[in-house]
Amino acid sequence: MRLNKLLPLAAAAALIPSLALAQDAPGFDEIGPYIMTTLLFCMAGFLVFFMAAGFAMLEGGLVRSKNVTMQMTKNIALFSIAAIMYWLVGFNTMYPGDFNGYFAIGGQTVLDPVGVAAADAALDYASVGSDFFFQLVFVAATASIVSGALAERIKLWPFLIFVVVLTGFMYPISGSWQWGGGWLSEMGFSDFAGSTVVHSVGGWAALAGAIVLGPRLGKYKDGKVNPMPGSNLALATLGTFILWLGWFGFNGGSQMAMGTVGDVSDVSRIFANTNMAAAAGAVTALILSNVMYKKPDLTMVLNGALAGLVSITAEPLAPTLFGALWIGAVGGVIVVFTVPLLDKFKIDDVVGAIPVHLFAGIWGTIAVIFYNSDASLGTQITGILAYGIFTFVASLVVWFILKAALGIRVSEEDEINGLDTSEMGMEAYPEFSKG
Amino acid sequence: MRLNKLLPLAAAAALIPSLALAQDAPGFDEIGPYIMTTLLFCMAGFLVFFMAAGFAMLEGGLVRSKNVTMQMTKNIALFSIAAIMYWLVGFNTMYPGDFNGYFAIGGQTVLDPVGVAAADAALDYASVGSDFFFQLVFVAATASIVSGALAERIKLWPFLIFVVVLTGFMYPISGSWQWGGGWLSEMGFSDFAGSTVVHSVGGWAALAGAIVLGPRLGKYKDGKVNPMPGSNLALATLGTFILWLGWFGFNGGSQMAMGTVGDVSDVSRIFANTNMAAAAGAVTALILSNVMYKKPDLTMVLNGALAGLVSITAEPLAPTLFGALWIGAVGGVIVVFTVPLLDKFKIDDVVGAIPVHLFAGIWGTIAVIFYNSDASLGTQITGILAYGIFTFVASLVVWFILKAALGIRVSEEDEINGLDTSEMGMEAYPEFSKG
Amino acid sequence: MRLNKLLPLAAAAALIPSLALAQDAPGFDEIGPYIMTTLLFCMAGFLVFFMAAGFAMLEGGLVRSKNVTMQMTKNIALFSIAAIMYWLVGFNTMYPGDFNGYFAIGGQTVLDPVGVAAADAALDYASVGSDFFFQLVFVAATASIVSGALAERIKLWPFLIFVVVLTGFMYPISGSWQWGGGWLSEMGFSDFAGSTVVHSVGGWAALAGAIVLGPRLGKYKDGKVNPMPGSNLALATLGTFILWLGWFGFNGGSQMAMGTVGDVSDVSRIFANTNMAAAAGAVTALILSNVMYKKPDLTMVLNGALAGLVSITAEPLAPTLFGALWIGAVGGVIVVFTVPLLDKFKIDDVVGAIPVHLFAGIWGTIAVIFYNSDASLGTQITGILAYGIFTFVASLVVWFILKAALGIRVSEEDEINGLDTSEMGMEAYPEFSKG
Repeated sequence: MRLNKLLPLAAAAALIPSLALAQDAPGFDEIGPYIMTTLLFCMAGFLVFFMAAGFAMLEGGLVRSKNVTMQMTKNIALFSIAAIMYWLVGFNTMYPGDFNGYFAIGGQTVLDPVGVAAADAALDYASVGSDFFFQLVFVAATASIVSGALAERIKLWPFLIFVVVLTGFMYPISGSWQWGGGWLSEMGFSDFAGSTVVHSVGGWAALAGAIVLGPRLGKYKDGKVNPMPGSNLALATLGTFILWLGWFGFNGGSQMAMGTVGDVSDVSRIFANTNMAAAAGAVTALILSNVMYKKPDLTMVLNGALAGLVSITAEPLAPTLFGALWIGAVGGVIVVFTVPLLDKFKIDDVVGAIPVHLFAGIWGTIAVIFYNSDASLGTQITGILAYGIFTFVASLVVWFILKAALGIRVSEEDEINGLDTSEMGMEAYPEFSKG
Repeated sequence: MRLNKLLPLAAAAALIPSLALAQDAPGFDEIGPYIMTTLLFCMAGFLVFFMAAGFAMLEGGLVRSKNVTMQMTKNIALFSIAAIMYWLVGFNTMYPGDFNGYFAIGGQTVLDPVGVAAADAALDYASVGSDFFFQLVFVAATASIVSGALAERIKLWPFLIFVVVLTGFMYPISGSWQWGGGWLSEMGFSDFAGSTVVHSVGGWAALAGAIVLGPRLGKYKDGKVNPMPGSNLALATLGTFILWLGWFGFNGGSQMAMGTVGDVSDVSRIFANTNMAAAAGAVTALILSNVMYKKPDLTMVLNGALAGLVSITAEPLAPTLFGALWIGAVGGVIVVFTVPLLDKFKIDDVVGAIPVHLFAGIWGTIAVIFYNSDASLGTQITGILAYGIFTFVASLVVWFILKAALGIRVSEEDEINGLDTSEMGMEAYPEFSKG
Repeated sequence: MRLNKLLPLAAAAALIPSLALAQDAPGFDEIGPYIMTTLLFCMAGFLVFFMAAGFAMLEGGLVRSKNVTMQMTKNIALFSIAAIMYWLVGFNTMYPGDFNGYFAIGGQTVLDPVGVAAADAALDYASVGSDFFFQLVFVAATASIVSGALAERIKLWPFLIFVVVLTGFMYPISGSWQWGGGWLSEMGFSDFAGSTVVHSVGGWAALAGAIVLGPRLGKYKDGKVNPMPGSNLALATLGTFILWLGWFGFNGGSQMAMGTVGDVSDVSRIFANTNMAAAAGAVTALILSNVMYKKPDLTMVLNGALAGLVSITAEPLAPTLFGALWIGAVGGVIVVFTVPLLDKFKIDDVVGAIPVHLFAGIWGTIAVIFYNSDASLGTQITGILAYGIFTFVASLVVWFILKAALGIRVSEEDEINGLDTSEMGMEAYPEFSKG
């Protein structure tokens, strides 16, 4: 919209058509928000993508060295499968044009054409490619949660088949209830970035799997819990930092708009709150583990940070920084108390995924009511139950079918030797002798 | 461009000069695209920068532990040398003002002045600093490819001298043929983000080096191929994830514009396609390695993902998601079949860099013709051959000169003891006893 | 600001109010800069956040394996504590509304309201959330510097109490002198991104701690310096690359504006210069260590890159690329010569944090005068001394109080066994037998 210098009043007539012409190629006023939001999805998307590396490092560091190659394979394979399944059916199941609210199965994702014209683009939103990419990296997170809990004894292929079902069908169907504009969304359920829709769903699937699969050999023996320490805590710490980094995209991108003063400011508010909740979860777990066990426990601190992040995910925008602090801190408390609780029930969750993603996810979903006046306890619990029942039951069914059809657990001998030797034929650290 | 509220018609005269003044400090309509594209280069640039860490971790994980310090040193040194050489001559060789198309050698890069005025900036493009930074991180990738293939037996300094020649002269000269607007570009050769210009070039240089250098001691013995397993597959997996992350910048940034609806939408389309090709390469290599060797092979999966990425790099924009899937999948197939092929010819490529970057790079360059109607098979092959012949011959010459002048290979004793002890005097894992 | 097509002159009266209305929801011309700068802070902020992982990996790689769990715990805990303390008092101490210039103590940070209206936002700057987040990740870097220098013998809780004081009070108070608009800023002291305000401050606090704490057992014995090699140089290299990545945010974000042609161009100029200084520092340390010790020293190369980064941090904008090169190269020289110097004085700095952050930080602050004509040597030295005296004395006082009240050093037996066993009860690599 360039105007000539010192345009005389008489030229006003000329001015108008020139302004009018600008409409054909819309100015930044019109396209700016579209560009910014598309950029937000791309940027948040690559951050959330990197969480796949975070999960791999966290899990690879918390399993024993004889199972690391398997854990790496599972993590890169599950992300890849999620990417394909979500394109094939997931995205259009979750965000259908005319959604039926329950069990619609969609088709393949089709992107905007190359060099899409402004007139053909969703100017009040973002490009299809950016939206698809952002949603896609979310679904992979769900599968990563399952991967960690069931480590060190599950067979590769049955696990990957479960991932096919989870990322192509279970997650998108239940996700559509809320983010696809379905019945829970209409009811007023509130879950900003997915404490329930993503994290609890992963946690429920993991819980069902852990029950069907049973604990690792020797984990619970003669009424005692045998600790099986992770082989590489530096790697586990790196994984936690990467997840923390990715969470800025996970929560910040869920603002789903960055083209107005209010939206970009909200994104930054979410960044600050997300960071605070993680910090509070870590510090709380550090202090609490020191009080309870006389020594600070690094794995509790890592999981405390993650639990803080999961806790703030359902509502990272509305709370004050103090709100984020205490919501995250409660997440840290939950981890310290529920990790041993699972052991009581002989549910063997190798990396603490169920406390972090399921229990803190439930807490975060409930905590929404303290800062978001549109949310009610009843509706939040309805949502939690709906996701829990659907995902847990569907997962149980799939796990039982897989168990019956293929077997999901390696032989005792293979488990003792380690999955890297028996299933993969390749050790992760072949040169470091084991103590 | 602020206007007073309820401005009466009579004040229109005042309005016009005020609008006119706005031209002196141009509004967002004019500068928005420049800002967005400069931001794209900065953002994509830091993602591609991080690929240096990805290569280091991938290679550090795939060599034996006695050569890890050397591999780390080579990777950080090669990036640093590339940064200096590309400033000194490379950038202005590759993107000369009045390009002669063949062997121009440029001078040092000069950035825009501090706080450049809109009137002095390339408003239809981006800042020089962002463009230089983005191009610079590309050249380092080329050198990293060579570093991986020649690991575990090459001397440090001759390798680094090769990097000087590669990043200061060979890559910029051949790069100018296409991206500098030279003869291949005029002929209609199409290579969006560098399957050939970057990856094949690195692959050819590595192939020449591997031939001149010869295989590692004991790799091919009595007609058998001795596997020499990598020392840290968790690190190699991390490296692969970092490379995958960086590739969003590598391909996305190569759109080279983000200031219109079409451009930002294309960037997101590239993100989605790049991700799909990587996923397809990984899944294909997983399945194929399981079929062929009865067990899934993690190193094949990692290289499959990378081959998928290299394959889509020549044309990440035009394909549909299904196109990206099958192009990437073919990349995965190529890796699984050509890694053993190289062994047949006793070409010892430690990390699989030649299959991933050269063979998949050739494939990706050919695959352009399926989705980009402007590309022809003949021209694509012309480009592939031109880059291949130039880089391979020039590399051979440089390697032979280095061999004659300095020797490029460590002594047998030093190789057996490991480069970390003999060349570096510093072990990477001094405390972990070797099995 | 949409106008109808082919609007006749007669409709000009209608046009004006329509334009006027646009003011209520301001167009991109007005809000664009706010959005871009807020985005800059968010993006640079997540990059600088990731430096926490970089410090953890660098330090975890450079300590012996028996102290890795402790080093991980310290790094995630110090970041978390910094996040809480900076919210509680630090941010408002450092950037007070009506600053008194010396020892003001602020209150909690309050963010912009959710969905802030343009009329209520700082349209000429950025959202409070983004500004707070960006400043917050800086303060954590300061504490990470201390963590590295004092590794392998300091107790966890006294260290964390020091972090509380450093991040809540010491850093914000002295930071306010310059970045809060205090007396040094008024005097004309120049420190763009914190060679002094951040890095030297961390270095002084580390130096005071190293003196009070004393060297590791056996480090200096019978007049000889015993090398104590780091346990994992791959990890240390990864940490360096992550820090280098984060530095694009550290320096680039310190432009504090991205909404004009000049500002975004400056950000990209800073990226290019920052990268060049790191590369020059690395290459210089590589060559120099090879000349002095006959073999290239990877840890020197890593610290050389970091010293190059610290050196350019005080003025990453004004220098030419050649300026960045030689400023960074001098940083590399400083590291190679001052690491042994500290050993002469029996000051045991485990990771080389004092040479990198303090000595190169002083150099970088002086180097400002070569490219920024507003800076004078006298004022730069005044600033260096003011930060040095305040931080060193205050740190000494806090370390002595902590020593008297709690003891800051573990017992000899615990130090020999390693902090992971004695203080944490958890080894980082429990399965890898130690050579």
